[in-house]
Amino acid sequence: MNRLCVHTITTKPLSLEQVAEAYPKAGVSGVTVWRDALEGRDIAASGRLLRDAGLEIVSLCRGGFFPHTEPAKRKLAIADNLRAIDEAAALGAPLIVLVCGAAADQPLETSRRQIAEGIAEIEPYARAANVKLAIEPLHPMYADTRSAINTLAQANDLAMQIGSGFVGVAVDVYHLWWDPALQQEIYRCGSNGKLFAFHICDWRVPTRDLLLDRGLMGEGCIPVKQIRQWVEAAGFDGYHEVEIFSTEYWSGDQYVFLERIREAYIHHS
Amino acid sequence: MNRLCVHTITTKPLSLEQVAEAYPKAGVSGVTVWRDALEGRDIAASGRLLRDAGLEIVSLCRGGFFPHTEPAKRKLAIADNLRAIDEAAALGAPLIVLVCGAAADQPLETSRRQIAEGIAEIEPYARAANVKLAIEPLHPMYADTRSAINTLAQANDLAMQIGSGFVGVAVDVYHLWWDPALQQEIYRCGSNGKLFAFHICDWRVPTRDLLLDRGLMGEGCIPVKQIRQWVEAAGFDGYHEVEIFSTEYWSGDQYVFLERIREAYIHHS
Repeated sequence: MNRLCVHTITTKPLSLEQVAEAYPKAGVSGVTVWRDALEGRDIAASGRLLRDAGLEIVSLCRGGFFPHTEPAKRKLAIADNLRAIDEAAALGAPLIVLVCGAAADQPLETSRRQIAEGIAEIEPYARAANVKLAIEPLHPMYADTRSAINTLAQANDLAMQIGSGFVGVAVDVYHLWWDPALQQEIYRCGSNGKLFAFHICDWRVPTRDLLLDRGLMGEGCIPVKQIRQWVEAAGFDGYHEVEIFSTEYWSGDQYVFLERIREAYIHHS
Repeated sequence: MNRLCVHTITTKPLSLEQVAEAYPKAGVSGVTVWRDALEGRDIAASGRLLRDAGLEIVSLCRGGFFPHTEPAKRKLAIADNLRAIDEAAALGAPLIVLVCGAAADQPLETSRRQIAEGIAEIEPYARAANVKLAIEPLHPMYADTRSAINTLAQANDLAMQIGSGFVGVAVDVYHLWWDPALQQEIYRCGSNGKLFAFHICDWRVPTRDLLLDRGLMGEGCIPVKQIRQWVEAAGFDGYHEVEIFSTEYWSGDQYVFLERIREAYIHHS
């Protein structure tokens, strides 16, 4: 249980005060904070609130969204990423997850180049703030607008190319479970010290919505235990982060949901 | 225009008689017949109906769905594929598209092995009937129940491994547009004489349904022209097959839709 982390978005209806109270009671040890949960709040105080409750802050979600056809928008994206680094430092989060972005009105190759340029541009600022950056490859069904980085091989290539100890990857089973190269690419990032984060949930059969129908571990077809074993064999000993977007779960009792997360974590991950 | 083919499923509300009349009027030269359109019909007579209307029969959709946990169900799948080969021969279709299948209750690796075994098992029957088989990799969002073959690299590997002139691949832009290895894998199958079919449509932004929200070429973010150029540079000179599943288009006037397909084909593919 001491490796269980939950993303604030997973229990979206809860305030940060409720998170601080409810997560430890449910046996959750770590928390990944989404930036929307920090809006209008004193960020350093929010970090203290969570730590005082006994929670370790695992990462801040999310930076990224680098590609745009207009250069002015790419500059705004860089500025927003620097703000995210400031927020992570203030919060006491050692890591930012990067959802890299994509622009449907330009070629994927252009978006991929802009992502590489964007990460290279913010890396010195992240390094100075002692905040790491994790490139999260997203499922190919999000290649239109959310991420032009769609396989772990791509994310690994990009992290290697940037060549900074502050840039690695996040492995999310939802995005990557289908990939025949998954095991070898997990070993590749693990053996190169670039496996920074591990996200879990499940793929429902059927999946009724492209974005908001993720399942609890055990509810779907992802071999979560198998992938966890690969990740651990690759040297990863960090948190197992439960990241679920679900209109169904968000509409229910979040305290009951946290108990179900705990049970699913014990039995299916 | 003489390379434009439409799948009967694209204009699902039309009967085969209506297809035979409407497709040539809309400038469509080829037709790929879905098996549901043949149900309860004399198959050889259906083939004559289409050819007499001036249409070339490009392929029969679809065989496949090999993986099952129960051996008895795998045997039924083989039997159904042999029937599909008989139907293709009776119809006068030179090719069957294989949607390979997946079983959510077993590991993807197991499904992938069962697919390889299934295709190897039906290949002699297809060869004897002079009907080719095209392995169609499906988008990773269908890896749960529709296909465990999710990249062109996988499909190419499988076709090479089977090593028959009667087994190749189908390239569908909808399933493959996101893949950074797409161009090189198109050249690979093309240069090995294994590029048997080319399917086109578009990825809507946003896509509202995982299965039934495909767009007309030009409506979305897929670089259809670019991919067509790769396919042609790889030596492909067959039909460009419009395959669209869309509750929206199916609910409208199919004759108007056929005109829109023709326009989209001319301007965006």
